[in-house]
Amino acid sequence: MKKLVLLRHGESTWNQENRFTGWTDVDLTPKGIEEAQTAGKLLRDHGFAFDIAHTSVLKRAIRTLWITLDEMDRMWTPVELNWRLNERHYGALQGLNKAETAQQYGDEQVLIWRRSYDTQPPAMTADDKRYPGLDPRYKDLAKNEIPLTESLKDTVARFLPYWDQVIAPQIRSGKNVIIVAHGNSLRALIKHLDQISDQDILNYNIPTGIPLIYELDDDLKPIQNYYLGETAAVEQAMFTVANQGKVKA
Amino acid sequence: MKKLVLLRHGESTWNQENRFTGWTDVDLTPKGIEEAQTAGKLLRDHGFAFDIAHTSVLKRAIRTLWITLDEMDRMWTPVELNWRLNERHYGALQGLNKAETAQQYGDEQVLIWRRSYDTQPPAMTADDKRYPGLDPRYKDLAKNEIPLTESLKDTVARFLPYWDQVIAPQIRSGKNVIIVAHGNSLRALIKHLDQISDQDILNYNIPTGIPLIYELDDDLKPIQNYYLGETAAVEQAMFTVANQGKVKA
Repeated sequence: MKKLVLLRHGESTWNQENRFTGWTDVDLTPKGIEEAQTAGKLLRDHGFAFDIAHTSVLKRAIRTLWITLDEMDRMWTPVELNWRLNERHYGALQGLNKAETAQQYGDEQVLIWRRSYDTQPPAMTADDKRYPGLDPRYKDLAKNEIPLTESLKDTVARFLPYWDQVIAPQIRSGKNVIIVAHGNSLRALIKHLDQISDQDILNYNIPTGIPLIYELDDDLKPIQNYYLGETAAVEQAMFTVANQGKVKA
Repeated sequence: MKKLVLLRHGESTWNQENRFTGWTDVDLTPKGIEEAQTAGKLLRDHGFAFDIAHTSVLKRAIRTLWITLDEMDRMWTPVELNWRLNERHYGALQGLNKAETAQQYGDEQVLIWRRSYDTQPPAMTADDKRYPGLDPRYKDLAKNEIPLTESLKDTVARFLPYWDQVIAPQIRSGKNVIIVAHGNSLRALIKHLDQISDQDILNYNIPTGIPLIYELDDDLKPIQNYYLGETAAVEQAMFTVANQGKVKA
């Protein structure tokens, strides 16, 4: 039996401001840092140890991982960074306040953009200063790999090759792996592992900062999964996530 | 012309207590953290950007690198960790206070152990709780690779294969590289690059927390090298290092 650990980064400054973040490289808030510390302590206290850690190229995920490894006293764990673990790209919505967007377009349209499986938000253009092709961390990507916007379906499509070609073989070979990533890149993986339908994945909310343990068989089929930590904390975190994007009163 | 950046980690808790540290995994002091922040700001302000960062598997070096990358706003830089960049292994002296050791054995013997090129300090045994073979970070090493003690000559011998096989080819292929390591693993590299004699390398002191820039030709022969930062700060740092291991008054 193999164990895979998934961890969604803690609260970021734009979560707090309720903005569409996507590939914008915002940092953790003090609360987000605390969430990461708690996750690291939980993993340490439950005896977890990783041979390899995977994360995105966005600092809110990288910092969550660094803090986690620090708390585990395993800062020497090899880390592999890849853009395919990034959050879903939200196109021209990136940087907009979610409540404002909801007031302008209506709750329903915002929910469609955030939660529809194959509807893309309005695209940004390649001359936008936010265009990822201008950022040196994406300099080795082919132009057609750099998103201008993404549906969740697009996020799944660019995530899965990294799972199939890099992470899954490591787990099969017996490595203990943690993936520290984002709401939608983790949804992409969970959809794949648990064969969740396009519809049902939209209602699947992953709490921030709480390690999600997958027990997998030799074919990487899930046997069971569970969150580490107290049940009440997990439920509160899931409730908070589900209410993002609602118009604030 | 290629640039290589070397950085010795900032002050650690055992530097402060004046103990032989070696492979003991002690952390930075608040001063050491500040040194790393200053190094990161200097590198950022001088326009440095790295394609790859190399460090040891010891947290004082890893944390120095993390802080440096954070200050540069390049946390997404790929990091390669390797035990061959570790500090010299000080054998049975690890953990002893340097001033106490000097009082017991005399300044001269301590200077020989610290600064002789090929004299090993007393070895630890494989049943010592400090033996690296008990530490999971070294589990993939062959038994004959795990040191019980090291002369500087031994440190050079285990460092050079990593330089030749991993780092040098990356620099030749045009990658911008930083190496964040320790007094003696960096001495090993500088001895090799500048072809410094066994005798002269003993008097070569690298200040902590100050980026050392090597400009190299296509054959990786040094054209020139210099420290980033104000001259007075560099001189003070070198003076401090040179006086470690003297009996305290």
